[in-house]
Amino acid sequence: MSSKKKVLGVIGAGRIGQVHGKSVMQRIAGATIKTIADPYLNDDIKVFAEEIGVPNTTKNVDDIFNDGEIEAVLICSSTDTHSDLIIRAAKAGKHIFCEKPVDHDLERIKATLDIVKGCGVKFQIGFNRRFDHNFSKIKETIDTGIIGEPQILKIASRDPAPPPMEYIKVSGGLFLDMMIHDFDMARFLIGCEAESVYATGAVLVDDQIGEAGDVDTAIVTLVFENGAIGVIDNSRKAVYGYDQRAEVFGSKGCCSTENDAPSRVCTITVDGVIQDKPHYFFLERYFDAYAEEVRQFVNYLENDSESPCGFKDALMPVVMGLAAKKSLEEGRAVKISEIT
Amino acid sequence: MSSKKKVLGVIGAGRIGQVHGKSVMQRIAGATIKTIADPYLNDDIKVFAEEIGVPNTTKNVDDIFNDGEIEAVLICSSTDTHSDLIIRAAKAGKHIFCEKPVDHDLERIKATLDIVKGCGVKFQIGFNRRFDHNFSKIKETIDTGIIGEPQILKIASRDPAPPPMEYIKVSGGLFLDMMIHDFDMARFLIGCEAESVYATGAVLVDDQIGEAGDVDTAIVTLVFENGAIGVIDNSRKAVYGYDQRAEVFGSKGCCSTENDAPSRVCTITVDGVIQDKPHYFFLERYFDAYAEEVRQFVNYLENDSESPCGFKDALMPVVMGLAAKKSLEEGRAVKISEIT
Amino acid sequence: MSSKKKVLGVIGAGRIGQVHGKSVMQRIAGATIKTIADPYLNDDIKVFAEEIGVPNTTKNVDDIFNDGEIEAVLICSSTDTHSDLIIRAAKAGKHIFCEKPVDHDLERIKATLDIVKGCGVKFQIGFNRRFDHNFSKIKETIDTGIIGEPQILKIASRDPAPPPMEYIKVSGGLFLDMMIHDFDMARFLIGCEAESVYATGAVLVDDQIGEAGDVDTAIVTLVFENGAIGVIDNSRKAVYGYDQRAEVFGSKGCCSTENDAPSRVCTITVDGVIQDKPHYFFLERYFDAYAEEVRQFVNYLENDSESPCGFKDALMPVVMGLAAKKSLEEGRAVKISEIT
Amino acid sequence: MSSKKKVLGVIGAGRIGQVHGKSVMQRIAGATIKTIADPYLNDDIKVFAEEIGVPNTTKNVDDIFNDGEIEAVLICSSTDTHSDLIIRAAKAGKHIFCEKPVDHDLERIKATLDIVKGCGVKFQIGFNRRFDHNFSKIKETIDTGIIGEPQILKIASRDPAPPPMEYIKVSGGLFLDMMIHDFDMARFLIGCEAESVYATGAVLVDDQIGEAGDVDTAIVTLVFENGAIGVIDNSRKAVYGYDQRAEVFGSKGCCSTENDAPSRVCTITVDGVIQDKPHYFFLERYFDAYAEEVRQFVNYLENDSESPCGFKDALMPVVMGLAAKKSLEEGRAVKISEIT
Repeated sequence: MSSKKKVLGVIGAGRIGQVHGKSVMQRIAGATIKTIADPYLNDDIKVFAEEIGVPNTTKNVDDIFNDGEIEAVLICSSTDTHSDLIIRAAKAGKHIFCEKPVDHDLERIKATLDIVKGCGVKFQIGFNRRFDHNFSKIKETIDTGIIGEPQILKIASRDPAPPPMEYIKVSGGLFLDMMIHDFDMARFLIGCEAESVYATGAVLVDDQIGEAGDVDTAIVTLVFENGAIGVIDNSRKAVYGYDQRAEVFGSKGCCSTENDAPSRVCTITVDGVIQDKPHYFFLERYFDAYAEEVRQFVNYLENDSESPCGFKDALMPVVMGLAAKKSLEEGRAVKISEIT
Repeated sequence: MSSKKKVLGVIGAGRIGQVHGKSVMQRIAGATIKTIADPYLNDDIKVFAEEIGVPNTTKNVDDIFNDGEIEAVLICSSTDTHSDLIIRAAKAGKHIFCEKPVDHDLERIKATLDIVKGCGVKFQIGFNRRFDHNFSKIKETIDTGIIGEPQILKIASRDPAPPPMEYIKVSGGLFLDMMIHDFDMARFLIGCEAESVYATGAVLVDDQIGEAGDVDTAIVTLVFENGAIGVIDNSRKAVYGYDQRAEVFGSKGCCSTENDAPSRVCTITVDGVIQDKPHYFFLERYFDAYAEEVRQFVNYLENDSESPCGFKDALMPVVMGLAAKKSLEEGRAVKISEIT
Repeated sequence: MSSKKKVLGVIGAGRIGQVHGKSVMQRIAGATIKTIADPYLNDDIKVFAEEIGVPNTTKNVDDIFNDGEIEAVLICSSTDTHSDLIIRAAKAGKHIFCEKPVDHDLERIKATLDIVKGCGVKFQIGFNRRFDHNFSKIKETIDTGIIGEPQILKIASRDPAPPPMEYIKVSGGLFLDMMIHDFDMARFLIGCEAESVYATGAVLVDDQIGEAGDVDTAIVTLVFENGAIGVIDNSRKAVYGYDQRAEVFGSKGCCSTENDAPSRVCTITVDGVIQDKPHYFFLERYFDAYAEEVRQFVNYLENDSESPCGFKDALMPVVMGLAAKKSLEEGRAVKISEIT
Repeated sequence: MSSKKKVLGVIGAGRIGQVHGKSVMQRIAGATIKTIADPYLNDDIKVFAEEIGVPNTTKNVDDIFNDGEIEAVLICSSTDTHSDLIIRAAKAGKHIFCEKPVDHDLERIKATLDIVKGCGVKFQIGFNRRFDHNFSKIKETIDTGIIGEPQILKIASRDPAPPPMEYIKVSGGLFLDMMIHDFDMARFLIGCEAESVYATGAVLVDDQIGEAGDVDTAIVTLVFENGAIGVIDNSRKAVYGYDQRAEVFGSKGCCSTENDAPSRVCTITVDGVIQDKPHYFFLERYFDAYAEEVRQFVNYLENDSESPCGFKDALMPVVMGLAAKKSLEEGRAVKISEIT
């Protein structure tokens, strides 16, 4: 192991933990993983670790927190463990990358982040879409000034199929488990906070979702502090695949992205012109973005740069999600200041 | 003149009157114009009439109403004259095509339409976009069932430049002079009425518009009677041209349209891939749609078919515009039933 | 009739004669048609003339040649009559627009054009594609210099279905009746003459075409005088419609055009992304180009400008077609100088 | 190391050797590399090997050939060493993946392949583009029958910049070092061999290339054994990046691919619609294809399947390149049978 590499520990070796693990070991030159900790450690995880060249696996997360060689942790466990693990990592002096969200409870998020700030460790929350080639290109384009001042933001974000009902019941609902990504994207692209949120929702995909008190289709209007306005639409079920588009209209132009697809092939017959539909879901679509976000975390560790996705980013999308929920319940626009 | 042709009169020979005049005389086999009436009749109008082969011009609209040979009128005069002319035409037994809107005042619209119904003449209101090749193709696609039940509607509609301030002051504002087209398109595509409207607006293009009590940028959320939800965004100023797009997302797919452009040419250099921006404005963009709407009016005259755009279409977009205005003023969703 | 309008006569009132007739009377402000002459004059033609406002019809073409008011003729009769009518028109002092080609016989073309030159009348040959919005945009783009020096030209030109066998037997074959348009386009885009031609052909669509001594599928390579090289492919049968594309690759970039289609609508389902196929054939595809070429003919009559498509353009595509035929027969590249 | 993995040796650790090395160790579950041999072994290569987890490096290729545990080799050294290494590997009983081409000399290729056949080892030649998502999708589409019988093939293949003059002088020229990929692609897509080849070439990019006896711009026409015809164009310098497109036109439709680009973002301003140009060159463009071809090599090792790119594929593109050279020299179509 090259002495200059950043030494990381991974907590939680489920699907997303394995994505990050592979990225670090195979695609990120400046970092390596010394230990993977998972309370449900099994042979599959051990084989995975061996495959990617991670020397240690453990059931005990303290093996990471107590290891002086490990500088930073990637927290990839279930959401309900995030705040506790963040606090323990911070107190152990480890820099932190944590999958979103910190928590569903606003007070707990704030308390957790206050502790992290107090410990002085670096912190990055996992809003992976910021690191996607399409969305980051829109951001770069806006930043060049070529489209002038942003005035209207539009995001379409639709999943190929709803998650299991068990998940929906504990996830916080569409605004907190799904649109939260779009809230972050909205802030990222427009470059300031939302001032108010108005939510419309419907149950059009699965009645069970409605019975669980959630919606499966929603349109949310945003007013931003800089005067721009925006709209996000979500559906739990786009039968054609993962629909991930954004558009920013400004005083000098408009910048938007199409979906990625498996190929750029076009077939034309008497029936019309046919092209590939989008990638099926997030693992295919954001394969490179997941690597890029950890690469930028490693850069952030190496340099005294700002967090690519820091404290405010960990907090505000949750606030927006709570505002959207409240808006839907009360049938009115909700100010962000009502939540915070 | 072939005896089988429908004989029409045109009232008002301004820009749109000339568009319709040319369409009838040159592109619509089944109709001809006998007389053009315009109180401001001048040499230009006379030359125009001669050019397109219209035999008569007059300052006096009664020359049309009293002409037994003329079966139908195209009312293309300024909005404030519409309701009066509609009533006079109906009482004279002429079938009516009238540019939108009938009026800005809801009671006057209703009263006018009631008289027309009482007279038993045919009536079509001029929502030209329904007849556009792109929008009508979306409608046809939805009607095939290929995208299933519509769930989310999105319309982007942006003008290249704001109208003169004089116009904005009397037009009824963005929701009544501009978004009214999108309200009709929303009803047309979704196939039912809206139940409620929520409007967000901003003054981002020109402060004078704000001083006149209007907005120049707006996002309106719609809830439809069938449960679908939708969103319309408008801007008075898209520097890149007339932006006219729509998307309908359904249970089995999604159907959308790109803008038309002057050419399909693509130039690629070290600076990227460059293509034509959209047509500049409505006369270029809807050149064929204007002809198609009058062609369908003539078909409607020839057959006992339903109006391609009838009484309810003349009423409801205005109701939606008034609901949007009220929503913006009161900061809440407004039910359509509150207006009607 | 306005005295300033150019007064034209149309010879031949078949399909293309009617296209031009309508264009002049309805879409071209600066010209009018006084007389339509057709030896097979019938009621349909008379009705057509009345419909578009042409005052006279005749079986006798001399009624045009002897009419001092008529300045120019549009020759739209069958190819075998072109050279004779051109000569008679020229001798009568009429300016000439003639559908392509002048003739299939090179010597006769030359002799005809010599007479026209001697008479000093204006002359335009009907290569309509030059006036198409897409192809003229490529030409304009090249002329701006943005793609540098043209190096490679590619043209795809495919018909939706083969013409009747009777036509193929007298048309001169694929290289003279179909690819001739592409030969002209090649010269137009590259801006100089071809130096040599190499043809490959196959019978893949219909064996009868092969039995008639022709091919139905062909690829022709071109070397231009300025050093650029190019390739044209033709098929008599593209089941998806009329395929009309071109690409010019240069030292600083590449410029190409996609096909036009009835709409810009895109439908996405589990089966993929579906869009409209191209227009079916030339009348739909080149509707506007036909008007534009006559509009430019009228401009040419009004001004001392160069012919938009003159003597050399009437000659060289035929030369290239003959060279291609010879190349295919002899299995070798044929120099243009061998033909001329 | 999992005992089931195929154990490979890599010969040559230059650019492409490192691409394959990384692919095997990080992206291909079923294989591992035991040894990297490179006569120019240096610290960089050792660091690279360590980084990707390859245990052994050596200057002596016999350390691979004599290692009983190593089943197969990836030959990634310079072209002039290929045939010798292939023969030695075959005689050592190692299965062989070799970068294209085996050699520039036809007799040597044949002799080499004969020895490989005699030794009974598996053999795959490295035409990577077959494994690209776009080109393989065209192949799959053709194989479904949806476009019917292939009739016209078109390939555009243009490099962003010419290679160094030193390379051009020894590479065999454009037809053998560059278009050879397109010759293979043509055979792959059409599914049979070419019967004859006609080449046109020009020196338009760099006079030095002409002085070295080569061309830098070329169009080659192909006639296939099944009657289809095709055309390939190459340029050494497309300033806008690596242009890699193909189109197959058939009796029932047409299938083509656009280029890949870094993003799907579209920016529209008063200056037009701007999108990303293609990837710069082959390492970016074919990143995944390189992994896929080795993945399929490993599958081929694991199963008694046919080589994804076997003996004939190693031979025929070279034959076609030689035919093209001869055609250009002699100014005539050259039959493939003249070369073999």
